[in-house]
Amino acid sequence: MKSFFHVSDIGDLSAALQEAAEVKRTPFAWKALGENKTIMLVFFNSSLRTRLSSQKAALNLGMSPIVLNIGQDSWKLETEMGVVMDGDKSEHLREAIPVMAGYCDIIGVRSFAGLTDRAYDYAETVLRQFIEYGGKPVISLESATVHPCQAFADLITIEEYRRGPRPKVVLTWAPHPRSLPQAVPNSFAEWMNAADVELVITHPEGYELDPAFVGNARVEYDQMKAFEGADFIYAKNWSCPGVTDPSQYGRVLSQDRSWTVGTRQMAVTNDAFFMHCLPVRRNMIVTDEVIDAPTSLVIPEAANRTVAAQVVMKRMLEDLQP
Amino acid sequence: MKSFFHVSDIGDLSAALQEAAEVKRTPFAWKALGENKTIMLVFFNSSLRTRLSSQKAALNLGMSPIVLNIGQDSWKLETEMGVVMDGDKSEHLREAIPVMAGYCDIIGVRSFAGLTDRAYDYAETVLRQFIEYGGKPVISLESATVHPCQAFADLITIEEYRRGPRPKVVLTWAPHPRSLPQAVPNSFAEWMNAADVELVITHPEGYELDPAFVGNARVEYDQMKAFEGADFIYAKNWSCPGVTDPSQYGRVLSQDRSWTVGTRQMAVTNDAFFMHCLPVRRNMIVTDEVIDAPTSLVIPEAANRTVAAQVVMKRMLEDLQP
Amino acid sequence: MKSFFHVSDIGDLSAALQEAAEVKRTPFAWKALGENKTIMLVFFNSSLRTRLSSQKAALNLGMSPIVLNIGQDSWKLETEMGVVMDGDKSEHLREAIPVMAGYCDIIGVRSFAGLTDRAYDYAETVLRQFIEYGGKPVISLESATVHPCQAFADLITIEEYRRGPRPKVVLTWAPHPRSLPQAVPNSFAEWMNAADVELVITHPEGYELDPAFVGNARVEYDQMKAFEGADFIYAKNWSCPGVTDPSQYGRVLSQDRSWTVGTRQMAVTNDAFFMHCLPVRRNMIVTDEVIDAPTSLVIPEAANRTVAAQVVMKRMLEDLQP
Repeated sequence: MKSFFHVSDIGDLSAALQEAAEVKRTPFAWKALGENKTIMLVFFNSSLRTRLSSQKAALNLGMSPIVLNIGQDSWKLETEMGVVMDGDKSEHLREAIPVMAGYCDIIGVRSFAGLTDRAYDYAETVLRQFIEYGGKPVISLESATVHPCQAFADLITIEEYRRGPRPKVVLTWAPHPRSLPQAVPNSFAEWMNAADVELVITHPEGYELDPAFVGNARVEYDQMKAFEGADFIYAKNWSCPGVTDPSQYGRVLSQDRSWTVGTRQMAVTNDAFFMHCLPVRRNMIVTDEVIDAPTSLVIPEAANRTVAAQVVMKRMLEDLQP
Repeated sequence: MKSFFHVSDIGDLSAALQEAAEVKRTPFAWKALGENKTIMLVFFNSSLRTRLSSQKAALNLGMSPIVLNIGQDSWKLETEMGVVMDGDKSEHLREAIPVMAGYCDIIGVRSFAGLTDRAYDYAETVLRQFIEYGGKPVISLESATVHPCQAFADLITIEEYRRGPRPKVVLTWAPHPRSLPQAVPNSFAEWMNAADVELVITHPEGYELDPAFVGNARVEYDQMKAFEGADFIYAKNWSCPGVTDPSQYGRVLSQDRSWTVGTRQMAVTNDAFFMHCLPVRRNMIVTDEVIDAPTSLVIPEAANRTVAAQVVMKRMLEDLQP
Repeated sequence: MKSFFHVSDIGDLSAALQEAAEVKRTPFAWKALGENKTIMLVFFNSSLRTRLSSQKAALNLGMSPIVLNIGQDSWKLETEMGVVMDGDKSEHLREAIPVMAGYCDIIGVRSFAGLTDRAYDYAETVLRQFIEYGGKPVISLESATVHPCQAFADLITIEEYRRGPRPKVVLTWAPHPRSLPQAVPNSFAEWMNAADVELVITHPEGYELDPAFVGNARVEYDQMKAFEGADFIYAKNWSCPGVTDPSQYGRVLSQDRSWTVGTRQMAVTNDAFFMHCLPVRRNMIVTDEVIDAPTSLVIPEAANRTVAAQVVMKRMLEDLQP
């Protein structure tokens, strides 16, 4: 695997899920793979789960993680080509990427969407530079438009908890005080489309996700209707994806608290499990009752982040073996 | 050991001191214990000794440390229950704690007192949430009211340097430009009360420590009288503990430089050793002469932080063995 | 090796270069040396290459790196003696150094020049305190006046790419928007003087480097003349070294863009390789054309940072063996 970015990078999903189950059962069984290997975890943005689960996954595989916080441990990096660098950025990605790649065997990169220029974000400019200039396998630790480590962990969790074949999975928008990227809902939709589930996406008008990620999902603007008979509710806020009007990209179009997931909505589901990628704003995204209920999967879902990351790193390490 | 918080958690002190001596002699003898084990070191506040000695202790035991700086590597965490999270805090401790615990085998937490609400601080709200929601052994790396890793290292140091049985140990307040927590004097008093020493506590009026920590110690408001015949002087600043008047909690009541430990006070001691947990403000807490004298133990005391942390982690790892 | 600071610390350069080639060929051959050993990497300033290559070098040798960012992970440190510490600095280097040294086997320190007081900077006050108070081997990870890890990596790179004996190496000043230290040009000049190369240094008047580093190099104020027939161009900005007038120390005397290294200057060289320590300001220090040309060595030069650091650490570890 040269990069982990889209669902297609993981290949057959049944095989991946089976491998995830094995990794979860015997996490230390592949420690020889990571011997003398180093993974560089580069953070342009804050992180809790991704930062920790990636380190844990690497350690489980016998690999040494090196963490770098750009703009904190290091300086700010220029990402545009052809500029005269007389401002506040001391180094260009064009140098920084191959340099960092030279000190490791795998690179993971967190680089959020700027949410001001849709074309720039959806071109995944930063991540693509890592792939192009690094010459080492690259893992997206949430980049501008995708968060595949999260979506893979979500799929593992759904596989573990589903009560039958082809569960109904509802991805629902929920309110938030700030403008957030679309990476999580994009990847979740992409992975659910590839998996054996019935996917419904619900959000207020204007929040339509990019068609490349929506795929064959049913889009339903009535949240209550969408929730009917659902087996899994996956809540997440996102800002306007700007699909029809790019000038709206990144805007907060609604803070409608009637979309906050509560017992009212959960009542019409098939006793659905509640999921969220975390961090979650309590009583904005979801009420205390729903997230504290026994059907809430947010903690096992987070724990599966290690499993997902470990499968991805394991495959990359296997490809690196002589 | 499920948590390391109070002196009672370490059990018999003689046994603990003997184990500390063994760990100091052969620090790498228990590396098998930590194999495939991870300790998460969570810092809500800055740290030098605790950060480094905890990592070193973990490495000595063959364990992998993962360090997380809250609000720097990650985002700010909400600690109150039931709030609508529409402010600057992106995640609740209620999620963050079990998530972090899911990626490790032991958690260490540094979380200073806020020094504005005595009841909140003395309830050890943050640390107790780690114990309640984490489900993993928890080490206080200085929490609101205690700093047991420091006190254990202090006891080890006194045991190493005492010239006879039952030494006289004086805990003295000293001036400082800022308002500081009571965690260090609290734990020092608690541990000395449990140890075989004669404990005297001296400070200006109004700085009375919580009775739960003062125990059977003699409190003496005349610093010179307290120092008479002392074998060990342990200096530390703390802010008003607010025992009689909680509204005074956290205030700086005095900056009286006559309390700065100098040769004048040391002259009436039994050629006492000088101790301080560090960081120390020179010529505020203690004069250059006293801290630079051969009787100053601040450096061996800091070095014993690794030994203390290693004994605690070793016991936790032993409890985790199948 | 008790410290790595000046070129003389590495001893015979031919032997060092041969050892570097071996380390590069079989980086993991000395993992037993670092068993149970810890290196403390202390950063008073930001770092990318040094931070990462030092960690990688330590890991290659089986050693555990512990990274500490002063003023971020920890608090600010006082460096002056005899002061009453009633300001914003919580701890004195006099304590912090032996404390840190107590938790490791080797210390690396990054501490940039302040660029306001020439005498203070050129006395290498901070680094010398680490050597004096730490009692452990000390590596300069760029201190006030030298950057030996960089210069050693530069020498390794020149050795790898030179087309014949005694190449002509030109160190050229180039413009930059900010005031930068002289550590890199100082060490480069020092190492080149000790190596078998013809060294020419070129810069606008007023930028004369300290004679202790210039050594026997030819100084040429006409950049084009200096470049004639050169085999390696080493570009770097530095601020006024204040050799003749200490009051000018640290000033930006010129931002003359005609000194930016471009195809015009490279045309008069012997198809010279271009080198820079990075981070580099594109189109200030060097044009895109020159740095993106096949003769640009900035990436292999950065990769050799691991090799240089590993040779230094390897020798220190060998000296620590019983």
